[in-house]
Amino acid sequence: MTTSVPASFAEIRAILAAWPAADLGAATLAAAREAQLTKPAGALGRLEEIGAWLASWQGHHPPALDRARIAVFAGNHGVAARGVSAYPPEVTTQMVANFVSGGAAVNQLCRSADAELRVYEMALEEPTADFTEGAAMSEADCAIAMSYGMMAVEPGLDLIGLGEMGIANTTSAAALAAMLFGGDGRGWAGPGTGVAGPALGRKIAAIDAGLARHRDAAAGDPLTALACLGGRELAAIAGAIIAARMARTPVLLDGFACTAAAAVLHKLDSHALDHCLVAHVSAEPGHRKLLAALGKRPLLDLDMRLGEASGAALAIPLLKAAVACHTGMATFAEAGVSGKSA
Amino acid sequence: MTTSVPASFAEIRAILAAWPAADLGAATLAAAREAQLTKPAGALGRLEEIGAWLASWQGHHPPALDRARIAVFAGNHGVAARGVSAYPPEVTTQMVANFVSGGAAVNQLCRSADAELRVYEMALEEPTADFTEGAAMSEADCAIAMSYGMMAVEPGLDLIGLGEMGIANTTSAAALAAMLFGGDGRGWAGPGTGVAGPALGRKIAAIDAGLARHRDAAAGDPLTALACLGGRELAAIAGAIIAARMARTPVLLDGFACTAAAAVLHKLDSHALDHCLVAHVSAEPGHRKLLAALGKRPLLDLDMRLGEASGAALAIPLLKAAVACHTGMATFAEAGVSGKSA
Repeated sequence: MTTSVPASFAEIRAILAAWPAADLGAATLAAAREAQLTKPAGALGRLEEIGAWLASWQGHHPPALDRARIAVFAGNHGVAARGVSAYPPEVTTQMVANFVSGGAAVNQLCRSADAELRVYEMALEEPTADFTEGAAMSEADCAIAMSYGMMAVEPGLDLIGLGEMGIANTTSAAALAAMLFGGDGRGWAGPGTGVAGPALGRKIAAIDAGLARHRDAAAGDPLTALACLGGRELAAIAGAIIAARMARTPVLLDGFACTAAAAVLHKLDSHALDHCLVAHVSAEPGHRKLLAALGKRPLLDLDMRLGEASGAALAIPLLKAAVACHTGMATFAEAGVSGKSA
Repeated sequence: MTTSVPASFAEIRAILAAWPAADLGAATLAAAREAQLTKPAGALGRLEEIGAWLASWQGHHPPALDRARIAVFAGNHGVAARGVSAYPPEVTTQMVANFVSGGAAVNQLCRSADAELRVYEMALEEPTADFTEGAAMSEADCAIAMSYGMMAVEPGLDLIGLGEMGIANTTSAAALAAMLFGGDGRGWAGPGTGVAGPALGRKIAAIDAGLARHRDAAAGDPLTALACLGGRELAAIAGAIIAARMARTPVLLDGFACTAAAAVLHKLDSHALDHCLVAHVSAEPGHRKLLAALGKRPLLDLDMRLGEASGAALAIPLLKAAVACHTGMATFAEAGVSGKSA
């Protein structure tokens, strides 16, 4: 399946208006098989739901999970100059080098989960504009970043997990969440990489300044909010989610920044994230709030707050286990196990 | 390391009085390495704790997780005759055959996690006595079952996950939990394999009858409570936990019945389960209550309620991921990544 590369928000809205729904035939086959497997009905809990969800969004039964990809998008943020992060902005580039040389957490997690890792650098030498002074990106820049994200979804993937790296991007994500769902800097800002005290105050002030500057243009217009307050890596995640829907590739979302990017699409269409599961709830406090707004229940809750798709990679074995149970278990008839008593 | 096989509760108490504590040297080395890895301090949350926990209970740094075993103990319960389960008692034997032929959920989960599976049948043709009429097991029978469980812990294991199969054993587990922590049948009984209505009423009545019959002998004596209200598979789990402590093999506990067996040891010594992590919280309502009483936070919360070590097997990839991060990540110095700003 090919997706023409959109160059404007109008083209992106047109894609969203026409994208596919779940495959109910595959979902029905999954439910029928699940009912025959040697366990009390429902006893595998969310593993059963995952099997059916994968089938319905892959568009075939049985679901498969042989080829999983983790895509990490990296971007730099002008707002970093306001001292909102515990780390200097050059860490974005340094961490990309760490991804490439195999030394980061996500490298180990992908190896452990037998998933392939792709890292997408997005013009790191050219940060987005400081959103307290103007729009982080123009509409065209934002649409290009979304298109770049779409390219991470290649044919033949059974699953794609999405994540990000970008010093100061929890500031950007918090501002975006506040613009989409209401509230202010104090309500959405958290420690990110570990800010507290005066730095946390600067973070809150930057978010509030961004909200004040862009409210007229961006309130009620989620894609404009993404352009004004987001970053290239966040736009790329939104693009990848769109492309995955078109390609029938189920999606695992990572933490706070990743989910804030996804929330842009949810505000455009309340079913836009039906093909996405949230891998984990981050220790970053805004994430739990954001998941409540989206009505999404995370798979894992392990106090992680690293980003770089670490939660998404960690959740892949749960999905593989769900597929293994759904496809590999014996039925009551095959195993000669008695059914439920009257 | 060899553990002499105990034939009485006095011998089991003697083992508990002399068992090893955590290896603080290994824990210190783990903490020192963790602090240098390329991530903000604490950003991997519980994965960091798991790495240190494995090191301290394996007694070496770095921790290893190459050889993981899942041990499933199966037993039959006299109280099943009271109609407390949704399935007939012959399902225990039928499910053991399903484990052996590879068709059960735990088979798929072990394959998916690259863990070896061992199934231990415990005199299935001879159920324990109906605990509403007398002690389920004599002290000698209970000690023998504990010894049998100890044999599941062989040298060379990096981890052992424990679980059970036994029609009616959530009735037994609920009675045991009530005897250990107070409360009654209504407070601890849940649907188990799916009972409701009159069958749930029978389950509650059986638990209350067992509590009334054995309270004088068993209140304040956890091993006697295990003999009076437990089952062979539950005694075996308690034995395996003891042997694992002696052999420096960390333990993953599964759901409600498994945790009730472990709780016997906790009541004997509040540090008895320090080498155990709880893999998941079951949908069986008593499990959450039991975990609160033990002060244990589960790794997973996925609405599962199957037993057969399914939650333990599902959690193994999380532990492997923790080891992979702890041992494989680059340090800030190795990767040339800048540290935290002042």
